[in-house]
Amino acid sequence: MTGSLPRLEVCLSPALLHLFDTRDAVVVIIDVFRATSTIAAALDNGAQCVIPVASVPECVDLGRTIENAITAGERDGKVAEGLEYGNSPLEYPKEFVQGRTVVLTTTNGTRLLHMVKDAAVIITGSFLNLGAVCDFLIAQNKNVLLGCAAWKDRFNMEDTLFAGAVVNRIRDHFALNCDSARAANSLYEQSAKGSFIDFLRDSSHYRRLSGFGLVGDMEYCTTPDLHPVVPILQGRELVIHR
Amino acid sequence: MTGSLPRLEVCLSPALLHLFDTRDAVVVIIDVFRATSTIAAALDNGAQCVIPVASVPECVDLGRTIENAITAGERDGKVAEGLEYGNSPLEYPKEFVQGRTVVLTTTNGTRLLHMVKDAAVIITGSFLNLGAVCDFLIAQNKNVLLGCAAWKDRFNMEDTLFAGAVVNRIRDHFALNCDSARAANSLYEQSAKGSFIDFLRDSSHYRRLSGFGLVGDMEYCTTPDLHPVVPILQGRELVIHR
Repeated sequence: MTGSLPRLEVCLSPALLHLFDTRDAVVVIIDVFRATSTIAAALDNGAQCVIPVASVPECVDLGRTIENAITAGERDGKVAEGLEYGNSPLEYPKEFVQGRTVVLTTTNGTRLLHMVKDAAVIITGSFLNLGAVCDFLIAQNKNVLLGCAAWKDRFNMEDTLFAGAVVNRIRDHFALNCDSARAANSLYEQSAKGSFIDFLRDSSHYRRLSGFGLVGDMEYCTTPDLHPVVPILQGRELVIHR
Repeated sequence: MTGSLPRLEVCLSPALLHLFDTRDAVVVIIDVFRATSTIAAALDNGAQCVIPVASVPECVDLGRTIENAITAGERDGKVAEGLEYGNSPLEYPKEFVQGRTVVLTTTNGTRLLHMVKDAAVIITGSFLNLGAVCDFLIAQNKNVLLGCAAWKDRFNMEDTLFAGAVVNRIRDHFALNCDSARAANSLYEQSAKGSFIDFLRDSSHYRRLSGFGLVGDMEYCTTPDLHPVVPILQGRELVIHR
Protein backbone atom coordinates (compact mmCIF):
# COMPACT_ATOMS: atom_id res chain seq x y z
CA MET A 1 0.00 0.00 0.00
CA THR A 2 2.87 2.34 0.78
CA GLY A 3 4.18 1.50 -2.68
CA SER A 4 2.03 4.21 -4.18
CA LEU A 5 3.13 6.87 -1.71
CA PRO A 6 6.05 9.12 -2.55
CA ARG A 7 9.40 8.49 -0.81
CA LEU A 8 10.64 10.41 2.20
CA GLU A 9 14.41 10.28 2.78
CA VAL A 10 17.00 12.14 4.81
CA CYS A 11 20.55 12.88 3.65
CA LEU A 12 22.74 13.47 6.70
CA SER A 13 25.67 15.13 4.92
CA PRO A 14 26.44 16.64 1.50
CA ALA A 15 29.09 13.90 1.20
CA LEU A 16 26.24 11.36 1.01
CA LEU A 17 24.09 13.25 -1.51
CA HIS A 18 25.21 11.05 -4.43
CA LEU A 19 23.41 8.11 -2.80
CA PHE A 20 20.01 9.70 -3.35
CA ASP A 21 17.96 10.15 -6.49
CA THR A 22 16.74 13.75 -6.47
CA ARG A 23 15.23 13.73 -9.95
CA ASP A 24 11.78 15.24 -9.88
CA ALA A 25 11.91 15.36 -6.07
CA VAL A 26 11.37 18.17 -3.61
CA VAL A 27 14.67 18.84 -1.86
CA VAL A 28 14.71 20.72 1.44
CA ILE A 29 18.02 22.41 2.27
CA ILE A 30 18.52 22.51 6.05
CA ASP A 31 21.11 24.71 7.74
CA VAL A 32 19.51 25.51 11.08
CA PHE A 33 22.52 27.37 12.53
CA ARG A 34 21.92 29.71 10.81
CA ALA A 35 21.60 30.16 7.06
CA THR A 36 18.16 28.71 6.46
CA SER A 37 16.84 30.35 9.64
CA THR A 38 18.07 33.73 8.41
CA ILE A 39 16.53 33.11 4.99
CA ALA A 40 13.11 32.39 6.53
CA ALA A 41 13.31 35.47 8.75
CA ALA A 42 14.48 37.84 6.00
CA LEU A 43 11.81 36.72 3.54
CA ASP A 44 9.03 36.71 6.12
CA ASN A 45 10.06 40.22 7.12
CA GLY A 46 9.61 41.43 3.55
CA ALA A 47 12.90 40.94 1.72
CA GLN A 48 12.23 40.75 -2.01
CA CYS A 49 14.54 37.76 -2.32
CA VAL A 50 17.63 36.12 -0.89
CA ILE A 51 20.44 35.14 -3.24
CA PRO A 52 22.72 32.50 -1.71
CA VAL A 53 26.31 32.60 -2.97
CA ALA A 54 29.33 30.53 -2.08
CA SER A 55 32.12 33.07 -1.55
CA VAL A 56 32.67 36.51 -0.04
CA PRO A 57 34.05 38.03 -3.29
CA GLU A 58 31.02 36.68 -5.18
CA CYS A 59 28.78 38.27 -2.56
CA VAL A 60 30.53 41.65 -2.84
CA ASP A 61 30.48 41.61 -6.66
CA LEU A 62 26.84 40.62 -6.89
CA GLY A 63 25.84 43.17 -4.24
CA ARG A 64 27.33 45.94 -6.40
CA THR A 65 25.16 45.06 -9.39
CA ILE A 66 21.83 45.04 -7.52
CA GLU A 67 20.13 48.23 -6.42
CA ASN A 68 19.47 48.43 -2.71
CA ALA A 69 21.15 45.09 -2.01
CA ILE A 70 22.33 43.96 1.38
CA THR A 71 25.50 41.89 1.37
CA ALA A 72 25.68 39.49 4.26
CA GLY A 73 27.67 36.61 5.58
CA GLU A 74 29.92 35.47 8.37
CA ARG A 75 33.12 33.61 8.75
CA ASP A 76 33.94 32.25 12.19
CA GLY A 77 30.99 33.99 13.81
CA LYS A 78 31.85 37.51 12.60
CA VAL A 79 30.64 39.61 9.67
CA ALA A 80 33.00 38.69 6.86
CA GLU A 81 35.50 41.30 5.71
CA GLY A 82 33.99 43.33 2.87
CA LEU A 83 30.36 42.55 3.75
CA GLU A 84 27.85 44.71 5.60
CA TYR A 85 25.82 42.33 7.72
CA GLY A 86 25.99 38.97 9.44
CA ASN A 87 24.18 35.67 9.35
CA SER A 88 21.75 36.19 12.22
CA PRO A 89 17.97 36.05 11.72
CA LEU A 90 17.74 38.82 14.31
CA GLU A 91 19.58 41.25 12.03
CA TYR A 92 16.78 41.34 9.47
CA PRO A 93 13.74 43.08 10.97
CA LYS A 94 10.97 44.35 8.72
CA GLU A 95 11.97 48.01 8.84
CA PHE A 96 15.44 47.13 7.63
CA VAL A 97 14.91 44.40 5.09
CA GLN A 98 11.58 45.17 3.43
CA GLY A 99 11.78 45.26 -0.37
CA ARG A 100 15.50 44.64 -0.42
CA THR A 101 17.60 41.88 -1.92
CA VAL A 102 19.81 40.00 0.53
CA VAL A 103 22.93 38.52 -1.03
CA LEU A 104 23.97 35.94 1.54
CA THR A 105 27.15 33.94 1.58
CA THR A 106 27.23 30.83 3.71
CA THR A 107 29.45 27.81 3.43
CA ASN A 108 27.62 24.60 4.22
CA GLY A 109 24.07 25.50 3.19
CA THR A 110 24.94 27.20 -0.09
CA ARG A 111 27.25 24.41 -1.10
CA LEU A 112 24.56 21.77 -0.65
CA LEU A 113 22.01 23.91 -2.48
CA HIS A 114 24.31 24.20 -5.48
CA MET A 115 25.10 20.47 -5.42
CA VAL A 116 21.49 19.39 -5.94
CA LYS A 117 20.72 18.62 -9.58
CA ASP A 118 17.49 17.82 -11.39
CA ALA A 119 15.20 18.38 -8.42
CA ALA A 120 11.65 19.44 -9.21
CA VAL A 121 11.76 22.04 -6.45
CA ILE A 122 14.33 23.26 -3.94
CA ILE A 123 13.13 24.92 -0.75
CA THR A 124 14.84 25.79 2.53
CA GLY A 125 13.79 24.62 5.97
CA SER A 126 14.42 25.58 9.59
CA PHE A 127 12.50 25.43 12.83
CA LEU A 128 11.35 28.99 12.11
CA ASN A 129 9.27 27.68 9.20
CA LEU A 130 8.76 24.05 10.25
CA GLY A 131 4.99 23.95 9.89
CA ALA A 132 4.97 25.76 6.55
CA VAL A 133 7.57 23.38 5.13
CA CYS A 134 5.58 20.34 6.30
CA ASP A 135 2.34 21.64 4.78
CA PHE A 136 4.14 22.35 1.52
CA LEU A 137 5.69 18.86 1.35
CA ILE A 138 2.37 17.15 1.96
CA ALA A 139 0.67 19.27 -0.69
CA GLN A 140 3.33 18.59 -3.33
CA ASN A 141 2.87 14.82 -3.14
CA LYS A 142 6.31 14.13 -4.65
CA ASN A 143 9.39 12.28 -3.43
CA VAL A 144 11.13 14.32 -0.72
CA LEU A 145 14.76 14.51 0.27
CA LEU A 146 15.56 16.39 3.47
CA GLY A 147 19.15 17.53 2.97
CA CYS A 148 21.19 18.43 6.03
CA ALA A 149 23.89 20.98 5.26
CA ALA A 150 25.99 19.57 8.11
CA TRP A 151 29.35 21.11 9.06
CA LYS A 152 32.12 20.68 6.54
CA ASP A 153 30.46 17.39 5.57
CA ARG A 154 30.30 16.22 9.17
CA PHE A 155 26.96 15.06 10.54
CA ASN A 156 25.44 17.64 12.84
CA MET A 157 22.77 17.39 15.45
CA GLU A 158 20.66 20.47 14.77
CA ASP A 159 20.03 19.84 11.09
CA THR A 160 19.24 16.19 11.77
CA LEU A 161 16.91 17.13 14.61
CA PHE A 162 14.98 19.43 12.30
CA ALA A 163 14.81 16.69 9.66
CA GLY A 164 13.41 14.43 12.37
CA ALA A 165 10.77 17.00 13.29
CA VAL A 166 9.63 17.05 9.65
CA VAL A 167 9.66 13.25 9.35
CA ASN A 168 7.63 12.99 12.53
CA ARG A 169 4.95 15.34 11.23
CA ILE A 170 4.58 14.14 7.64
CA ARG A 171 5.54 10.46 7.68
CA ASP A 172 1.99 9.18 7.28
CA HIS A 173 1.86 10.77 3.85
CA PHE A 174 5.02 9.08 2.58
CA ALA A 175 6.72 5.71 2.17
CA LEU A 176 9.54 5.61 4.67
CA ASN A 177 12.32 3.14 3.99
CA CYS A 178 15.34 5.15 4.99
CA ASP A 179 17.24 4.49 8.21
CA SER A 180 18.52 8.09 8.29
CA ALA A 181 14.93 9.29 8.38
CA ARG A 182 14.07 6.81 11.15
CA ALA A 183 17.11 7.85 13.17
CA ALA A 184 16.30 11.53 12.73
CA ASN A 185 12.76 10.84 13.90
CA SER A 186 14.11 8.98 16.94
CA LEU A 187 16.31 11.94 17.85
CA TYR A 188 13.29 14.19 17.52
CA GLU A 189 11.24 11.92 19.80
CA GLN A 190 14.11 11.89 22.26
CA SER A 191 14.28 15.70 22.19
CA ALA A 192 10.57 15.95 22.94
CA LYS A 193 11.42 15.29 26.57
CA GLY A 194 12.63 18.90 26.78
CA SER A 195 13.09 21.83 24.40
CA PHE A 196 15.07 21.66 21.17
CA ILE A 197 17.69 23.97 22.56
CA ASP A 198 18.12 21.81 25.66
CA PHE A 199 18.69 18.82 23.41
CA LEU A 200 21.27 20.74 21.39
CA ARG A 201 23.16 22.28 24.27
CA ASP A 202 25.78 19.56 24.16
CA SER A 203 26.23 19.63 20.36
CA SER A 204 29.40 20.70 18.56
CA HIS A 205 27.77 23.67 16.88
CA TYR A 206 26.13 24.94 20.06
CA ARG A 207 29.50 24.89 21.76
CA ARG A 208 31.16 26.64 18.85
CA LEU A 209 28.53 29.37 18.42
CA SER A 210 28.07 29.97 22.12
CA GLY A 211 31.79 30.73 22.16
CA PHE A 212 30.96 33.58 19.75
CA GLY A 213 28.22 34.87 22.08
CA LEU A 214 25.42 33.57 19.86
CA VAL A 215 23.25 31.73 22.39
CA GLY A 216 20.35 34.16 21.77
CA ASP A 217 20.58 33.43 18.06
CA MET A 218 20.42 29.71 18.64
CA GLU A 219 17.43 30.03 20.95
CA TYR A 220 15.67 32.06 18.28
CA CYS A 221 16.62 29.57 15.54
CA THR A 222 15.10 26.66 17.46
CA THR A 223 11.72 28.32 18.08
CA PRO A 224 9.15 26.73 15.76
CA ASP A 225 7.01 28.66 13.33
CA LEU A 226 8.05 32.25 14.00
CA HIS A 227 8.38 32.79 10.23
CA PRO A 228 5.82 30.58 8.49
CA VAL A 229 7.00 30.98 4.89
CA VAL A 230 8.34 28.56 2.30
CA PRO A 231 11.49 29.94 0.64
CA ILE A 232 11.65 28.42 -2.84
CA LEU A 233 14.50 28.61 -5.34
CA GLN A 234 13.64 30.34 -8.62
CA GLY A 235 16.68 30.66 -10.80
CA ARG A 236 19.30 31.97 -8.42
CA GLU A 237 16.81 33.62 -6.05
CA LEU A 238 15.02 32.33 -3.00
CA VAL A 239 11.56 33.88 -2.82
CA ILE A 240 8.41 33.14 -0.85
CA HIS A 241 6.26 30.41 -2.37
CA ARG A 242 2.75 31.78 -2.84
CA MET B 1 40.24 18.57 31.82
CA THR B 2 38.84 16.59 28.93
CA GLY B 3 41.71 17.98 26.87
CA SER B 4 43.98 15.24 28.07
CA LEU B 5 41.54 12.45 27.35
CA PRO B 6 41.68 10.61 24.03
CA ARG B 7 38.98 11.35 21.43
CA LEU B 8 35.92 9.19 20.84
CA GLU B 9 34.25 9.62 17.45
CA VAL B 10 31.73 7.77 15.29
CA CYS B 11 31.86 7.53 11.50
CA LEU B 12 28.36 6.77 10.20
CA SER B 13 29.35 5.64 6.70
CA PRO B 14 32.51 4.65 4.81
CA ALA B 15 31.77 7.66 2.57
CA LEU B 16 32.55 9.91 5.56
CA LEU B 17 35.75 8.15 6.63
CA HIS B 18 37.98 10.80 5.04
CA LEU B 19 36.70 13.34 7.60
CA PHE B 20 38.37 11.51 10.46
CA ASP B 21 42.00 11.24 11.47
CA THR B 22 42.69 7.57 12.17
CA ARG B 23 46.43 7.90 12.63
CA ASP B 24 47.52 6.05 15.72
CA ALA B 25 43.87 5.47 16.66
CA VAL B 26 41.95 2.33 17.51
CA VAL B 27 39.38 1.77 14.77
CA VAL B 28 36.41 -0.50 15.42
CA ILE B 29 34.81 -1.96 12.29
CA ILE B 30 31.07 -2.49 12.87
CA ASP B 31 28.91 -4.62 10.60
CA VAL B 32 26.29 -6.00 12.95
CA PHE B 33 24.17 -7.71 10.25
CA ARG B 34 26.21 -9.88 10.04
CA ALA B 35 29.91 -9.87 9.23
CA THR B 36 31.37 -8.68 12.53
CA SER B 37 28.89 -10.84 14.46
CA THR B 38 29.99 -13.90 12.51
CA ILE B 39 33.65 -13.02 13.09
CA ALA B 40 33.13 -12.84 16.86
CA ALA B 41 31.23 -16.13 16.90
CA ALA B 42 33.72 -18.00 14.71
CA LEU B 43 36.76 -16.86 16.70
CA ASP B 44 35.13 -17.45 20.07
CA ASN B 45 34.19 -20.94 18.91
CA GLY B 46 37.82 -21.72 18.16
CA ALA B 47 38.54 -20.67 14.58
CA GLN B 48 42.27 -20.09 14.20
CA CYS B 49 41.62 -16.88 12.31
CA VAL B 50 39.20 -15.13 9.98
CA ILE B 51 40.52 -13.59 6.78
CA PRO B 52 38.15 -10.97 5.39
CA VAL B 53 38.31 -10.55 1.61
CA ALA B 54 36.38 -8.32 -0.74
CA SER B 55 35.31 -10.62 -3.57
CA VAL B 56 34.02 -14.15 -4.12
CA PRO B 57 36.87 -15.10 -6.54
CA GLU B 58 39.42 -13.83 -4.01
CA CYS B 59 37.71 -15.94 -1.36
CA VAL B 60 37.78 -19.07 -3.55
CA ASP B 61 41.42 -18.56 -4.57
CA LEU B 62 42.62 -17.92 -1.05
CA GLY B 63 40.62 -20.87 0.31
CA ARG B 64 42.49 -23.18 -2.07
CA THR B 65 45.89 -22.14 -0.72
CA ILE B 66 45.08 -22.69 2.96
CA GLU B 67 44.81 -26.13 4.47
CA ASN B 68 41.50 -26.90 6.11
CA ALA B 69 40.06 -23.49 5.16
CA ILE B 70 36.37 -22.68 5.13
CA THR B 71 35.26 -20.34 2.38
CA ALA B 72 32.25 -18.31 3.34
CA GLY B 73 30.14 -15.43 2.21
CA GLU B 74 26.72 -14.44 1.01
CA ARG B 75 25.26 -12.33 -1.69
CA ASP B 76 21.60 -11.35 -1.31
CA GLY B 77 21.09 -13.56 1.70
CA LYS B 78 22.32 -16.79 0.08
CA VAL B 79 25.66 -18.62 0.12
CA ALA B 80 27.55 -17.11 -2.80
CA GLU B 81 28.17 -19.31 -5.84
CA GLY B 82 31.49 -21.12 -5.45
CA LEU B 83 31.64 -20.81 -1.65
CA GLU B 84 30.81 -23.42 0.97
CA TYR B 85 29.17 -21.55 3.81
CA GLY B 86 27.18 -18.43 4.58
CA ASN B 87 27.49 -15.35 6.71
CA SER B 88 25.54 -16.44 9.75
CA PRO B 89 27.11 -16.63 13.22
CA LEU B 90 24.96 -19.72 13.81
CA GLU B 91 26.81 -21.63 11.10
CA TYR B 92 30.08 -21.68 13.03
CA PRO B 93 29.72 -23.88 16.14
CA LYS B 94 32.78 -25.12 17.95
CA GLU B 95 32.70 -28.65 16.55
CA PHE B 96 32.75 -27.27 13.02
CA VAL B 97 35.08 -24.31 13.18
CA GLN B 98 37.70 -25.20 15.78
CA GLY B 99 41.26 -24.82 14.51
CA ARG B 100 40.16 -23.82 11.03
CA THR B 101 40.71 -20.68 8.97
CA VAL B 102 37.57 -18.92 7.80
CA VAL B 103 38.00 -16.96 4.60
CA LEU B 104 35.01 -14.63 4.66
CA THR B 105 33.86 -12.35 1.90
CA THR B 106 31.53 -9.54 2.84
CA THR B 107 30.87 -6.31 1.03
CA ASN B 108 30.34 -3.43 3.44
CA GLY B 109 32.45 -4.52 6.41
CA THR B 110 35.47 -5.72 4.43
CA ARG B 111 35.49 -2.60 2.31
CA LEU B 112 35.61 -0.32 5.34
CA LEU B 113 38.29 -2.44 6.96
CA HIS B 114 40.49 -2.13 3.88
CA MET B 115 39.87 1.63 3.64
CA VAL B 116 41.31 2.42 7.07
CA LYS B 117 44.93 3.57 6.88
CA ASP B 118 47.52 4.28 9.54
CA ALA B 119 45.43 3.11 12.49
CA ALA B 120 47.32 1.80 15.51
CA VAL B 121 44.91 -1.09 15.84
CA ILE B 122 41.88 -2.37 13.93
CA ILE B 123 39.35 -4.53 15.75
CA THR B 124 35.81 -5.64 14.95
CA GLY B 125 32.74 -5.00 17.06
CA SER B 126 29.21 -6.36 17.36
CA PHE B 127 26.67 -6.81 20.11
CA LEU B 128 28.03 -10.34 20.54
CA ASN B 129 31.29 -8.89 21.87
CA LEU B 130 30.10 -5.49 23.13
CA GLY B 131 31.54 -5.70 26.63
CA ALA B 132 34.89 -7.09 25.46
CA VAL B 133 35.25 -4.28 22.90
CA CYS B 134 34.44 -1.64 25.53
CA ASP B 135 36.96 -3.03 28.00
CA PHE B 136 39.61 -3.14 25.27
CA LEU B 137 38.98 0.46 24.20
CA ILE B 138 39.22 1.76 27.75
CA ALA B 139 42.44 -0.16 28.35
CA GLN B 140 44.10 1.09 25.15
CA ASN B 141 43.72 4.76 26.14
CA LYS B 142 44.06 5.95 22.54
CA ASN B 143 41.82 7.94 20.20
CA VAL B 144 38.92 5.75 19.06
CA LEU B 145 36.93 5.78 15.84
CA LEU B 146 33.83 3.61 15.74
CA GLY B 147 33.36 2.91 12.04
CA CYS B 148 29.94 1.81 10.85
CA ALA B 149 30.11 -0.35 7.73
CA ALA B 150 26.64 0.89 6.73
CA TRP B 151 24.90 -0.46 3.61
CA LYS B 152 26.42 0.57 0.30
CA ASP B 153 27.54 3.77 2.04
CA ARG B 154 24.04 4.45 3.35
CA PHE B 155 23.62 5.10 7.05
CA ASN B 156 22.12 2.12 8.82
CA MET B 157 20.40 1.78 12.13
CA GLU B 158 21.95 -1.39 13.55
CA ASP B 159 25.60 -0.35 13.20
CA THR B 160 24.83 3.10 14.61
CA LEU B 161 22.91 1.58 17.50
CA PHE B 162 25.89 -0.59 18.37
CA ALA B 163 28.20 2.44 18.16
CA GLY B 164 25.81 4.20 20.55
CA ALA B 165 25.97 1.29 22.98
CA VAL B 166 29.76 1.59 23.03
CA VAL B 167 29.67 5.38 23.42
CA ASN B 168 27.23 5.03 26.28
CA ARG B 169 29.48 2.62 28.16
CA ILE B 170 32.88 4.23 27.65
CA ARG B 171 32.23 7.96 27.22
CA ASP B 172 33.53 8.93 30.65
CA HIS B 173 36.99 7.78 29.60
CA PHE B 174 37.10 9.92 26.45
CA ALA B 175 36.67 13.45 25.17
CA LEU B 176 33.43 13.52 23.22
CA ASN B 177 33.04 16.29 20.69
CA CYS B 178 31.37 14.49 17.84
CA ASP B 179 27.69 14.91 17.00
CA SER B 180 27.58 11.48 15.36
CA ALA B 181 28.66 9.93 18.65
CA ARG B 182 26.06 11.94 20.55
CA ALA B 183 23.33 10.96 18.11
CA ALA B 184 24.34 7.29 18.27
CA ASN B 185 24.20 7.49 22.06
CA SER B 186 20.74 9.06 21.87
CA LEU B 187 19.51 6.24 19.67
CA TYR B 188 20.92 3.77 22.15
CA GLU B 189 19.15 5.52 25.03
CA GLN B 190 15.96 5.52 23.00
CA SER B 191 16.33 1.77 22.33
CA ALA B 192 16.75 1.07 26.03
CA LYS B 193 12.97 1.31 26.33
CA GLY B 194 12.76 -2.16 24.77
CA SER B 195 15.16 -4.68 23.28
CA PHE B 196 17.63 -3.92 20.51
CA ILE B 197 15.75 -6.11 18.11
CA ASP B 198 12.49 -4.34 18.86
CA PHE B 199 14.17 -1.04 18.07
CA LEU B 200 15.52 -2.42 14.80
CA ARG B 201 12.37 -4.14 13.62
CA ASP B 202 11.45 -1.17 11.46
CA SER B 203 14.94 -0.73 9.94
CA SER B 204 15.82 -1.25 6.28
CA HIS B 205 18.17 -4.12 6.96
CA TYR B 206 15.75 -5.93 9.26
CA ARG B 207 13.13 -5.79 6.55
CA ARG B 208 15.57 -6.97 3.92
CA LEU B 209 17.02 -9.85 5.94
CA SER B 210 13.69 -10.98 7.35
CA GLY B 211 12.62 -11.36 3.71
CA PHE B 212 15.43 -13.94 3.45
CA GLY B 213 14.14 -15.78 6.54
CA LEU B 214 16.94 -14.48 8.76
CA VAL B 215 15.01 -13.20 11.77
CA GLY B 216 16.67 -15.78 14.03
CA ASP B 217 20.07 -14.58 12.87
CA MET B 218 19.22 -11.00 13.68
CA GLU B 219 17.93 -11.89 17.13
CA TYR B 220 21.18 -13.73 17.79
CA CYS B 221 23.27 -10.84 16.44
CA THR B 222 21.62 -8.36 18.80
CA THR B 223 22.18 -10.40 21.96
CA PRO B 224 25.00 -8.80 23.97
CA ASP B 225 28.12 -10.60 25.05
CA LEU B 226 27.50 -14.13 23.79
CA HIS B 227 31.03 -14.13 22.34
CA PRO B 228 33.24 -12.00 24.57
CA VAL B 229 36.35 -11.83 22.39
CA VAL B 230 38.20 -8.96 20.70
CA PRO B 231 38.99 -9.83 17.05
CA ILE B 232 42.10 -7.85 16.13
CA LEU B 233 43.66 -7.46 12.68
CA GLN B 234 47.18 -8.82 12.37
CA GLY B 235 48.40 -8.59 8.82
CA ARG B 236 45.48 -9.93 6.83
CA GLU B 237 44.12 -12.10 9.65
CA LEU B 238 41.63 -11.36 12.37
CA VAL B 239 42.62 -13.24 15.50
CA ILE B 240 41.59 -13.09 19.14
CA HIS B 241 43.42 -10.42 21.13
CA ARG B 242 45.04 -12.07 24.13
